[in-house]
Amino acid sequence: MIEQYIRDVHDFPKDGIVFKDITPLLQDPEGLNRSILGLAEAVDPDSYDVVCGIESRGFIFGTALAHHLGKGFIPIRKPGKLPWKTASETYELEYGTDTIEIHVDAVESGGRVLMVDDLLATGGTMEAGLKLVRRIGAVPVACCFVIELSFLNGRKLLGDVPAHSLMTV
Amino acid sequence: MIEQYIRDVHDFPKDGIVFKDITPLLQDPEGLNRSILGLAEAVDPDSYDVVCGIESRGFIFGTALAHHLGKGFIPIRKPGKLPWKTASETYELEYGTDTIEIHVDAVESGGRVLMVDDLLATGGTMEAGLKLVRRIGAVPVACCFVIELSFLNGRKLLGDVPAHSLMTV
Repeated sequence: MIEQYIRDVHDFPKDGIVFKDITPLLQDPEGLNRSILGLAEAVDPDSYDVVCGIESRGFIFGTALAHHLGKGFIPIRKPGKLPWKTASETYELEYGTDTIEIHVDAVESGGRVLMVDDLLATGGTMEAGLKLVRRIGAVPVACCFVIELSFLNGRKLLGDVPAHSLMTV
Repeated sequence: MIEQYIRDVHDFPKDGIVFKDITPLLQDPEGLNRSILGLAEAVDPDSYDVVCGIESRGFIFGTALAHHLGKGFIPIRKPGKLPWKTASETYELEYGTDTIEIHVDAVESGGRVLMVDDLLATGGTMEAGLKLVRRIGAVPVACCFVIELSFLNGRKLLGDVPAHSLMTV
């Protein structure tokens, strides 16, 4: 149970939105520990080889999980941040578009990947992340989130990749 | 020794720069493990209460270190990303300025903080980070970096806060 560590911030980033603030979870050793153990238990660690996190809050949970399990970590980043050869994917936002990138040599062909992000909202970012991982020849086996906003139906964009959340709103 | 996991990428982000790519380090379980253990050994964990990392590559090493040691993690973020009340600090770049923020309730008064980032270059970002931590009443006890570009003399901006690097170029 991590609910007690999440702070509701009203009208952020704009009026009418209740933002789920994860910083109280991170700054509490017990909260951080529960979230990493929760992610480790959500999907059998033997079913994947590496952990992939999406910039930048996916880095927070993804790297700690990877280190906890003795696995490697793959960052998916915003455009222009990764220095080597990349694959990129553009996806739609409420207004406009966004793009994320992955190094083409980030995972060996056929490598099994656990996808991690802090929040499942509309699912657009993770859908693009799944496309990127497949584009470089790897296999996304599951998606893990700390918080899921179920009223936004983000799961429907993830296809047949199972999704797990530590907390559902 | 982590040097073997760092990839030199020439002319990134612009001509003449040799960029130190940490992604091979992250994606190798042994490389990631060595870097976290190295950071844990660089500064006595009994000398600090929490780990603070600067967005976004400081999140990668900082959170894994915090979880490894059973401590909490404090994110310093780019402007407009933290939803609660913040303190902010603007610092100079080669061209223009940049700003970073911290939640005012991120660390209790007098709390001892280990600062973590992936790279010590000119030191401007970490200098601003030290100011932020002090501004909210906490005490930065040391700075840790994975890579230090010593020819840029970033240490001179860190004042009397000791700096440790896993690899120096």
